Amino acid sequence: MAKALTVVQPGSPGQTPVFGKIGIVGLGLVGGSLALAAREVWPSALVIGVDDKDVLERAMVQHAIDVAADDLVVISEADLIVLAAPVEENISLLSRLDGFVPGHAVVTDVGSTKRAIVAAARTLPPRFTFVGGHPLAGAARGGIDYARADLFKGRPWILTPEGEGVGQTVDRLFAFVSGLGATPRTMAPEVHDRLLAFLSHLPQLTVSALMRTVGEAAGSEGLSLAGRGLADTTRLASSPARIWREVCATNADHIGQALDRLIEDLQALRADLTKGDAVERIFAAAAEWKSRMPGDRQPKDGHS
Amino acid sequence: MAKALTVVQPGSPGQTPVFGKIGIVGLGLVGGSLALAAREVWPSALVIGVDDKDVLERAMVQHAIDVAADDLVVISEADLIVLAAPVEENISLLSRLDGFVPGHAVVTDVGSTKRAIVAAARTLPPRFTFVGGHPLAGAARGGIDYARADLFKGRPWILTPEGEGVGQTVDRLFAFVSGLGATPRTMAPEVHDRLLAFLSHLPQLTVSALMRTVGEAAGSEGLSLAGRGLADTTRLASSPARIWREVCATNADHIGQALDRLIEDLQALRADLTKGDAVERIFAAAAEWKSRMPGDRQPKDGHS
Repeated sequence: MAKALTVVQPGSPGQTPVFGKIGIVGLGLVGGSLALAAREVWPSALVIGVDDKDVLERAMVQHAIDVAADDLVVISEADLIVLAAPVEENISLLSRLDGFVPGHAVVTDVGSTKRAIVAAARTLPPRFTFVGGHPLAGAARGGIDYARADLFKGRPWILTPEGEGVGQTVDRLFAFVSGLGATPRTMAPEVHDRLLAFLSHLPQLTVSALMRTVGEAAGSEGLSLAGRGLADTTRLASSPARIWREVCATNADHIGQALDRLIEDLQALRADLTKGDAVERIFAAAAEWKSRMPGDRQPKDGHS
Repeated sequence: MAKALTVVQPGSPGQTPVFGKIGIVGLGLVGGSLALAAREVWPSALVIGVDDKDVLERAMVQHAIDVAADDLVVISEADLIVLAAPVEENISLLSRLDGFVPGHAVVTDVGSTKRAIVAAARTLPPRFTFVGGHPLAGAARGGIDYARADLFKGRPWILTPEGEGVGQTVDRLFAFVSGLGATPRTMAPEVHDRLLAFLSHLPQLTVSALMRTVGEAAGSEGLSLAGRGLADTTRLASSPARIWREVCATNADHIGQALDRLIEDLQALRADLTKGDAVERIFAAAAEWKSRMPGDRQPKDGHS
């Protein structure tokens, strides 16, 4: 499903920038980290940030951007435009580019779903070349204050090219995200959205539902007894609803199928608690898959 | 639901032991850690271990026990007997004590469910005083090799006394588990089992079902892209089936209700992916409960 990886050396400060004027719309954790990394790797590139004024101020304090505005006019001369707002805002931003950017530009995004934005990008004027993107990188907290230049180091960055004539742009984006420290690969938007429904969206919804269920039943006093097992399991439970509402809306079919499969397993466990054959079957498969995951250097028994 | 906490100073090495001869049946992570901690805090106490020969050898290498045997006869003179095998084995051990221990003894256990063993303990001869127990402590890996004297430090240790005349025994067990570094509290067996169904058993079943569902759909190649978010969420997914089969069998009613509530939330999300009102409602509640959990110094956004 993936294009063979091109070997690209990580950027070293001072090398010729892949893009000379990089416009980033949305300076949250990902957009802000992208800005910091780009400025570090390509000091001669101009990094332009668009966001609300208070976010821009914090980005300036961090030296994440060279130029800032709360208006798209500031990116009119960018040769790379990165949409780094929530998924549906990125889609609506696409339709506004024509009015603000008169020249040629490569356009990409960093959103968690890809089919919807790739479809929307088909209506862009031909002077824009769009290739969807998704860095699989997160951090402890969201927002510009937690942005870090090394956020993408060693993490996959999926690109979802579509249509003819984007090969050269994909090569440039490979060089760009490799420069930021990430490992680029390509994937069809459909394949990306199905995979991420299971790898990211289902776990997030499950953890939020679990945290709510446990909290409502145990209450604050009960929760105070919880140990590291539950704390780690529910690490993602503070995720903001808005971001995930838009992820769900733009990947509802695949997420629905993923939820169906999980609910089926939970119902099998439910039906067989006293006999335990479903417990044996599901735990054995889970332990086997867990052992194949990266970062499973410390398998846990969770017996507490 | 809890007895007011008695302030007990943690034991300091050399003080008079609460129990002089401590028999521990089952030297896994919890039994082994208990042995290590007891020997450290009360060097003059005799710590007797019962398990299979290979486990006993590893326990001796760790200096976790003074006396070892693969037969219950070795604990015949113990004044404290701790059942630290899986839940159903602990229950069957109860019925064998009469034949091996001729004198008076306090009997407790460290299992994850309490109603079944408390009910089984009612048939013990009156020279035994049984008080169920459950230290809420886990570690990276199970088994004697990962036992640590500080496993219980700062963790709750729930005792589930039942019936008349156990007050003095509860006081001694409070002193004993406080000496081990834990914070003792009492709870009715029914209250314990309902709370733990939500706090521990439901999260474990959910994580195992989630890991299986994600693994089957994503495959090894897909899993290789997973980041720390999924790795933390599924930290408990290597848990052994046997332990959890017995937990489920002895707490099926409460776990069933917990599963029903979670499935209800997941179905609400399923039905509302495109509109997203359920997402808003469940994520808002989850974030609120998460913020009230201990160890939530680093709320995560999980946006990747």
